[in-house]
Amino acid sequence: MKLVKNAAGRYVPVEINGLKSEPFRGVGAYKPKGKKAAPKISSCMDYPEDGNKIVPDLKTALIKAGIRDGITISTHHHFRNGDFIANRIFDIAAELGIKNLRWFPSAAFECHAPNIRHLDSGVIHHIEGSLNGSLGEYCSQGRMRGLGVLRSHGGRYQAIQDGEVHIDIAVIAAPTADPFGNANGVNGPSACGGLGFALADSQYADKVIVVTDNLVPFPCVPWQIQGNYVDYVVVMDKIGDPSKIVSGTTEITRSPDRLYIAELVAKFIKTAGIMRNGFSFQAGAGGTALAFAVELAKLMRKENIKARFVRGGSTKFLVEMLKEGLTDYILDGQTFDLEGVKSMRDNPNHVHTSPFTSYNYHGKGNFASMVDVVVLGATEVDLSFNANVVTHSDGRLLHGIGGWQNCLFSKCVILALPSFRDRIPVIVDEVTTLVGPGELIDVVITERGIAINPIREDLIDAVKNSDLPLKSIEELHREVIRICGKPQKPLLGDKIVAAVKWVDGTVLDSVKQVLKAQWGIKLPGAE
Amino acid sequence: MKLVKNAAGRYVPVEINGLKSEPFRGVGAYKPKGKKAAPKISSCMDYPEDGNKIVPDLKTALIKAGIRDGITISTHHHFRNGDFIANRIFDIAAELGIKNLRWFPSAAFECHAPNIRHLDSGVIHHIEGSLNGSLGEYCSQGRMRGLGVLRSHGGRYQAIQDGEVHIDIAVIAAPTADPFGNANGVNGPSACGGLGFALADSQYADKVIVVTDNLVPFPCVPWQIQGNYVDYVVVMDKIGDPSKIVSGTTEITRSPDRLYIAELVAKFIKTAGIMRNGFSFQAGAGGTALAFAVELAKLMRKENIKARFVRGGSTKFLVEMLKEGLTDYILDGQTFDLEGVKSMRDNPNHVHTSPFTSYNYHGKGNFASMVDVVVLGATEVDLSFNANVVTHSDGRLLHGIGGWQNCLFSKCVILALPSFRDRIPVIVDEVTTLVGPGELIDVVITERGIAINPIREDLIDAVKNSDLPLKSIEELHREVIRICGKPQKPLLGDKIVAAVKWVDGTVLDSVKQVLKAQWGIKLPGAE
Repeated sequence: MKLVKNAAGRYVPVEINGLKSEPFRGVGAYKPKGKKAAPKISSCMDYPEDGNKIVPDLKTALIKAGIRDGITISTHHHFRNGDFIANRIFDIAAELGIKNLRWFPSAAFECHAPNIRHLDSGVIHHIEGSLNGSLGEYCSQGRMRGLGVLRSHGGRYQAIQDGEVHIDIAVIAAPTADPFGNANGVNGPSACGGLGFALADSQYADKVIVVTDNLVPFPCVPWQIQGNYVDYVVVMDKIGDPSKIVSGTTEITRSPDRLYIAELVAKFIKTAGIMRNGFSFQAGAGGTALAFAVELAKLMRKENIKARFVRGGSTKFLVEMLKEGLTDYILDGQTFDLEGVKSMRDNPNHVHTSPFTSYNYHGKGNFASMVDVVVLGATEVDLSFNANVVTHSDGRLLHGIGGWQNCLFSKCVILALPSFRDRIPVIVDEVTTLVGPGELIDVVITERGIAINPIREDLIDAVKNSDLPLKSIEELHREVIRICGKPQKPLLGDKIVAAVKWVDGTVLDSVKQVLKAQWGIKLPGAE
Repeated sequence: MKLVKNAAGRYVPVEINGLKSEPFRGVGAYKPKGKKAAPKISSCMDYPEDGNKIVPDLKTALIKAGIRDGITISTHHHFRNGDFIANRIFDIAAELGIKNLRWFPSAAFECHAPNIRHLDSGVIHHIEGSLNGSLGEYCSQGRMRGLGVLRSHGGRYQAIQDGEVHIDIAVIAAPTADPFGNANGVNGPSACGGLGFALADSQYADKVIVVTDNLVPFPCVPWQIQGNYVDYVVVMDKIGDPSKIVSGTTEITRSPDRLYIAELVAKFIKTAGIMRNGFSFQAGAGGTALAFAVELAKLMRKENIKARFVRGGSTKFLVEMLKEGLTDYILDGQTFDLEGVKSMRDNPNHVHTSPFTSYNYHGKGNFASMVDVVVLGATEVDLSFNANVVTHSDGRLLHGIGGWQNCLFSKCVILALPSFRDRIPVIVDEVTTLVGPGELIDVVITERGIAINPIREDLIDAVKNSDLPLKSIEELHREVIRICGKPQKPLLGDKIVAAVKWVDGTVLDSVKQVLKAQWGIKLPGAE
């Protein structure tokens, strides 16, 4: 595999799974050429006049949609670890003797580990999409036939829109749908909130199959997925496990260190003058992020400050802020609990967004760069403020990128992190895998203090006279090394097992095979 | 100009304004080949990170968007006869010395008559879009440099989507917008309801300008037009005359004949068994259509029947049905009065639709064919049930097609018409211009009786034992001729002045120049 050194100093392949790829050229340096992907023109003459696109089962739909060797099939992670559909697709493909499929999920979870047997047997050639847990481990072990390709939510939209990834068949699991294919995620027993991750697939795939366990008469309102893009509708008894789709409860961290980090983040945002009337913020659904949102809400209440919008992943904590009037809007790409689902269904100010509106870098702007402050996690951050979210320090690929890269365009990017985990430093001299270029990461907040990126002189000025525990990243790093010792380098082979894309489709870094001594989870079929 | 005889027996040009065109081949007979139009790939690097796309004025926006000779500029008719923007665009073009523009409005109204001077001077080369009033007359007189091209709402979406019409600059007048370009029609002093007619333009035009007189901070919710497609935002004092945008009041006909027709239509629908629980209907906003809706609502109330959905153009009468629970949903392409606007804004069951969802024939189905019954008007209908909506019997081109052609795919198409107007027969031996093929028109209902298309044996069976005044179309025709006499043929020249497209982009008919003896309105510049 031919590698070149890209603008971030990382060696990346010039060809990925048989397609030429463009090395990363720097943030905002790669100008796309050419035109968007152009789907085939359809005609109503080929679709039922009564709008009824129901076929008996998923197998029939896949056959009608032209399932065959070597094509690309996409799925979506709206059901997270409760999805029943993706496994069913590849079981059917195996039954039909199909080989060499490219599986293009928006993300794969532990519930999809049974597909390892289809990877081993060659039904699935390789996966392009966020890989969590066992499938990430499988890729790390170098056992996947093709390269894993990791894209952000926005990068996935961009790749489809720009024609980098052509989807032959998109299968969209939908909590509610009508026979025409209009679908949403806010109603039905498997309600998950929005269906935005499937938007690009519906718009650009050759054939689109909607699978639901809650069929309603036309029209299914709202239509987050528009039936005018849909070819077939399949009704099943159960498309997912509701208890694993949304958690029902979202837990705030109880760790004193994490709670302290959350407080520091909120305090930093206030002190830096970011928390002012009409501001906006985004935080994820991790325990620290939730604690941060609660802390910030306290400060907002105290100072009588109101946000214009907050970005979801929503949870009951954001929903409460909306109800209380602490924000005008929640702009929400995915709901993380049942309160979020309910609020998106019932409150017109809890607005469903998509990777197109929020994250697509090859649009005429997107929402991410308008957010005043975003609070993110990472597996590692280094002395140049470069950060990693996909591999652990042992090199194992265990997480997807999600919207993380896209959020780096926020006006202030804060990484809220413990300085070490399980005595392994999180602050390192150089990240194992580069996922976020340091120039976009403004502040690192740990239990040991706050490091501001030196390029953000404005932020340094804004907080310099405060009582915030400011330190340099080097200081933080030295403290961590004093405690944990210098960590061992991961045991990596030379083989490239995955590529990390930047938001513009260029290749930011590559992920190397993890040598057997460091294999984590015992996977089926591994010697 | 080379003409060929198409499948409807009409002579149509094989080239329109320099582009090859496809003659009509029959309903459902033309299979589109090829791919959708592919817009250039944009990049966030070329757009302001803070999302603020505001430029000082429309002239600046047009210059930045690259206005130049020979390009296509699109506008929309959401403001109907109260629009201030389209005239301003071409005044600016004239100031800048630009020539040979193609104006591509979704419809032009009497308020746009001042653009005749720009047509005369060559600033505008020709108009492609629905032509009402003076601009239609101007085209009829043979004074426009290029051919008028009349498309239905769905046909306009199809033409843009399929790349038949490439828009260089789309100007979208929006009652409310944010600096990013998100826009809607439900809020603000110029509220008009939806902005669906501009959807295709926003998706496919090279450059998109949003013009508003009600700027709100990001996010403008709902975003009927997505800012991710928008290049520039212009704020003006006044973008339209609210009193002419929506009428404020919608009047039911007081003509005893029209009221009788409306009653007959409602009675036919009931008698034919179409009015049953879960059914759907569509009617326009003319006086007869309104009266029909009121009559049907009475019958529904009496029989305890509830519709699943009604299609707008909405008026207070449909809004009342929704409130009363006589229908689950209004699916609405445009609101015709203020009650409609308010309902679309406040009632989640009053849903904004677009020509893509409702009418695009080159989609994977659309809503129109799912509607149980549609009640339409026409200027003429002939013995083969062919109908005309664009020209009068004197040949003058005075109306656009709107969604009329698209609605012909409804399960039952009823034309509700007076049998003559001003002593000119509406039922004729052959329509002046073919806009709707007779095979799609099921029933003609006049004050003199009801004629069912013989191909609809099912409908004939369903009502045969009723007391409805059933007649053949020939009988109706004979009665009308007895009263009015045989009408004179219009005085038409040989010159083709406009082409009528079918929903699939093929050419259904052509419109000939009207000779001077028959010119109607006195237009500026005419000798």
